[in-house]
Amino acid sequence: MDLKKHIRDIQDFPKPGIGFKDITTLLINPEAMKEALNQFVDLAKGKGITKVVSMESRGFFFGPMIALEINAGFIPVRKPGKLPAETIAQEYALEYGTDTLEIHKDAIQKGDKVLIHDDVLATGGTAEAVVKLVEAAGGEVVQLDFIIDLTFLNGIDKLKGYQVNSLVQY
Amino acid sequence: MDLKKHIRDIQDFPKPGIGFKDITTLLINPEAMKEALNQFVDLAKGKGITKVVSMESRGFFFGPMIALEINAGFIPVRKPGKLPAETIAQEYALEYGTDTLEIHKDAIQKGDKVLIHDDVLATGGTAEAVVKLVEAAGGEVVQLDFIIDLTFLNGIDKLKGYQVNSLVQY
Repeated sequence: MDLKKHIRDIQDFPKPGIGFKDITTLLINPEAMKEALNQFVDLAKGKGITKVVSMESRGFFFGPMIALEINAGFIPVRKPGKLPAETIAQEYALEYGTDTLEIHKDAIQKGDKVLIHDDVLATGGTAEAVVKLVEAAGGEVVQLDFIIDLTFLNGIDKLKGYQVNSLVQY
Repeated sequence: MDLKKHIRDIQDFPKPGIGFKDITTLLINPEAMKEALNQFVDLAKGKGITKVVSMESRGFFFGPMIALEINAGFIPVRKPGKLPAETIAQEYALEYGTDTLEIHKDAIQKGDKVLIHDDVLATGGTAEAVVKLVEAAGGEVVQLDFIIDLTFLNGIDKLKGYQVNSLVQY
């Protein structure tokens, strides 16, 4: 199955001149969703991964499913003030200004082997921040798995030394 | 398995005097996650459900998994400006002021049988808004399934005439 056929192009979203890759058309088709999940599981199984970490909100679509399929725990990374227990925070740069992501301080144990999952690898700023959060908490990043890599944005440059996978590239 | 043992109480979150039910401790345990998923699938299977609709963000943890297990499509409901294609919007009341939720206009087809899923049923305002969105789009709400029902908030009163299920009650 060609997953690209299930990803919709939306022009001028969120800003004029930007083409947005919409995965809601993949999620609405259970065969396409199953295919994407199977590919993620093939990438992850047999590597001793103990935790899957995903970013709010679109990383939550597949993160828990991948975790369950490889018998790992799922850990959400969220925007400030959303996680109720004690957190570690990491700031990262946006086009203009900065943003912050948080993870529960007690979620990762020393020695945890971690898979980071998000829907899209764009500039890599978010993914780099999550790598820092996982490592600050004592985890080892085994790999980062995305549905989509927008390769023209060179996000992979911010993730040098890490295994980066994607199901679909533009 | 007693799922309550995997839900953590956080006092004074998000505001002083409020006790928050934290499901991240359930998500981090694959056995507990699997048990919750199995219970959701038992509640949903055999009912001809064609779409599962969940609310941003915590509804996204289980919504896609439930959809995949019963061979239905998954549809996210999001905050304004997050969904890239044409949307239907529904305003709902908060304690102070109002908020709005959106669904893609083309996501639900007339005759779709819809399961609405979220993590927590509290006052029922969000769930009621999502029922209105689904019906405005031409879908039939078969049932609403929550991990947690905070029964002391009587959210069920806003959902009269609908089948409402929850795995855990407080």
